Amino acid sequence: MPADVVEQLIDLLGDAVIADGPAMQAVREDRSGWRSPHPPLAIVHAGSVEDVQAVMRVASASGTPVVPRGAGTGLAGGAISSLGSIVLDLSRMDRILEISDVDELAVVEAGVLNGDLDRAARERGLWYAPDPASRAISSIGGNIATNAGGLLCAKYGVTRESVLGLVAVLADGTLLRTGHRTVKGVTGYDLTALLTGSEGTLAVIVEATVRLRPIVRGDTHTVAAAFPDVESAGVAVGGVAAARVRPALLELIDPIGLARVAEYLGPSALEGTPLDDLAPGETFLLAQCDAGDAADEAEFLARVFESAGGRVTRSTDAATGERLLDIRRAMHPALASRGNVLIEDVAVPRSRLPEMFRAIAEIGARHDVEIPTLAHAGDGNLHPNFVFEGDKVPERIWAAADELFRAGVRLGGTLTGEHGVGLLKRRWLAEELGDTSVELQRRLKQVFDPQGILNPGVMFAPVRSDADAGLAR
Amino acid sequence: MPADVVEQLIDLLGDAVIADGPAMQAVREDRSGWRSPHPPLAIVHAGSVEDVQAVMRVASASGTPVVPRGAGTGLAGGAISSLGSIVLDLSRMDRILEISDVDELAVVEAGVLNGDLDRAARERGLWYAPDPASRAISSIGGNIATNAGGLLCAKYGVTRESVLGLVAVLADGTLLRTGHRTVKGVTGYDLTALLTGSEGTLAVIVEATVRLRPIVRGDTHTVAAAFPDVESAGVAVGGVAAARVRPALLELIDPIGLARVAEYLGPSALEGTPLDDLAPGETFLLAQCDAGDAADEAEFLARVFESAGGRVTRSTDAATGERLLDIRRAMHPALASRGNVLIEDVAVPRSRLPEMFRAIAEIGARHDVEIPTLAHAGDGNLHPNFVFEGDKVPERIWAAADELFRAGVRLGGTLTGEHGVGLLKRRWLAEELGDTSVELQRRLKQVFDPQGILNPGVMFAPVRSDADAGLAR
Repeated sequence: MPADVVEQLIDLLGDAVIADGPAMQAVREDRSGWRSPHPPLAIVHAGSVEDVQAVMRVASASGTPVVPRGAGTGLAGGAISSLGSIVLDLSRMDRILEISDVDELAVVEAGVLNGDLDRAARERGLWYAPDPASRAISSIGGNIATNAGGLLCAKYGVTRESVLGLVAVLADGTLLRTGHRTVKGVTGYDLTALLTGSEGTLAVIVEATVRLRPIVRGDTHTVAAAFPDVESAGVAVGGVAAARVRPALLELIDPIGLARVAEYLGPSALEGTPLDDLAPGETFLLAQCDAGDAADEAEFLARVFESAGGRVTRSTDAATGERLLDIRRAMHPALASRGNVLIEDVAVPRSRLPEMFRAIAEIGARHDVEIPTLAHAGDGNLHPNFVFEGDKVPERIWAAADELFRAGVRLGGTLTGEHGVGLLKRRWLAEELGDTSVELQRRLKQVFDPQGILNPGVMFAPVRSDADAGLAR
Repeated sequence: MPADVVEQLIDLLGDAVIADGPAMQAVREDRSGWRSPHPPLAIVHAGSVEDVQAVMRVASASGTPVVPRGAGTGLAGGAISSLGSIVLDLSRMDRILEISDVDELAVVEAGVLNGDLDRAARERGLWYAPDPASRAISSIGGNIATNAGGLLCAKYGVTRESVLGLVAVLADGTLLRTGHRTVKGVTGYDLTALLTGSEGTLAVIVEATVRLRPIVRGDTHTVAAAFPDVESAGVAVGGVAAARVRPALLELIDPIGLARVAEYLGPSALEGTPLDDLAPGETFLLAQCDAGDAADEAEFLARVFESAGGRVTRSTDAATGERLLDIRRAMHPALASRGNVLIEDVAVPRSRLPEMFRAIAEIGARHDVEIPTLAHAGDGNLHPNFVFEGDKVPERIWAAADELFRAGVRLGGTLTGEHGVGLLKRRWLAEELGDTSVELQRRLKQVFDPQGILNPGVMFAPVRSDADAGLAR
């Protein structure tokens, strides 16, 4: 049967089908550090909607699992090959089909990279707001499948808020169109939102109509500060919220993360920044303000940061702003230079951020693991990181991660703010959602995918054990 | 069986159950001009989540239809009594349970009026952005059930973008919690968005966690203009979009609507406004700009309006701004003073607004009906109105409305931008969505409501004929 499926695919799609070679190994991974124990049956590089439909018809006729995959930059194992699966790679469907100035929208194929769309939009005086840190390398289809977040979400919204409509291929190959070219539209259920964040388990997203925004006018003002400890940085974050100021971004790096960043960048990169004379235990906070009142807002933030004990640097020129933002951007490379990185993704209500930081410190101490943490402090989304050697996540890191997820949920938060559930977080899904919701969601999946061939094992699909489902690296 | 159901409800809920008197007639109507041929079996004024659960348990055990109803201000017949139904009235569940300053959110019962929430939020330096024109009288639960729009949506989003989480009672009385207290959160499918806009057909929304925003600082600047005709106003709207300026609101009243408003308000109300020396055929355009660059934006808009042939009035003081906005607000009362009003609600991509206005004019001429039209020009949402005498919508108005919906869909738009499908628009649903989507949505409904007791007949539920289903007035 499997050989027959591959033959059918080759008959239909020729060279677009790959069934051996290094690519078969590459799709066992994404950027999460996870590696599937199974290469796929085959990879299909779809070049058109019709290709995707052809694959789904073969898959549904034969009951073959399909893993939709974009740029392969996921952080939760949501698009890696599973046992006997077809990896349906959409990265060649990378055409920007339309940019409408007046309607402020773009129509794109799923494989278009987020950064490429944003660049094309900016040539027309528009931009694409959802800005996952991976935007240079991640695809719009993957962004939509995970409802990706980013740095600017507190002000400009998550991916869902920019998706107006979708074209998706259903499990049996049928084409589904959802949504509108208008900001408003309430005809029927919001299938656009239901597919957004569904991680390839309901349908294969092949095309999207997304909202663009006018480029924000005026200079971006950047305020950065080093605080003596996480607590005082937390006071500053609270002060920003209490003053009803909403910077475009507000990023926090905890002392352990900051030490790693400083080592990685070296002294010359930090000259003239608040990290120039970094003391142990210091915390970094970075804000950027845009739009008409950016100057006033930045001035105000600088005062709030100072009165909370921060050593402040302000910048109104783009170059210095970028240099300060580079400190934030260095976080992941700094950690990745020291070993494999497991990036977590809890989000808690902003008011609970101080408690969450305390919980992270306690959990790290109890399990004797370092947990360098980055936070999108404006929206309460934290990325605690674990760095480890070798191919396998050590047990004590798993134990710490487990406590960390539970702490986030206990504080009224969620186990994934923006990366998705994938394979990595499904063990905690029911704990957050409750049985009623999980059961309902399983039944919604059955409506879309009665045979269970779309990305089986991902999110809350039946789990036997992690080892069976390909979780162990 | 029906008598038994009412007895059971009275046993459980006592005085909260009404089975006779004028209220039984009142729930046959909303604000759409529709009147159900059937009073309900009973009305239950739920005072708590437990009351709602009790009603749903009785209803599901007996297979009795339930019509969830908020403030009864709907415009599509989505919450009026149907044959043998329990009207589940949530208007007494009107407590604001929490306003969190730091997390910028509120937790409210479904019956809280939009305007009451906004007022309470403003006392804390926050506001609730979704602003349906009915905000003083419509409930948050109803707003969510229809994914209500408003004037500020192009800039501040529709209701869905402000809903973080819901508590809903399922058909069998089980409680479902969806969403988060955080802006980000991607655990599982987005049931919050699926319930938003589902018009009481999937579950009964009893509580909502909604996003609040910091009050926009600075003065609101208002620019109003009278244009010689719809075309030149359309040029101005296009000029605003092309210049990448996004006013907080941009409202257009066509010549017929404007004549009715001017008659209704009388000369003294128009003194000092662009309508002071109104000529036949003139069109009204009103913009408001807020936030830091409001003054610059308003200055720019005034120039765009003038160069398109507009006679402009600008205002920076709140009183004049309100006076200009009162002209817009007078549209519905002006029409309602002349007869019954059927308000339509198509939305088209902004770029197609001029074509839609031409289509409205042609359709009006062909059917010899006046179609005074208001447009939220910033987001392409139009409200063509039909005024008629007596209890029954005349056939030629139906014929015109039919062509109007089809024209909107043909221009890439939708048959309802913000009012919902209800009973009024379900006949056009499949034409917009296509059979694949409708079939999928029907099956999603079955997952939530296997017996089909939640608001049967609304949206795309089985339709035999309009007369059977209570459409004729």
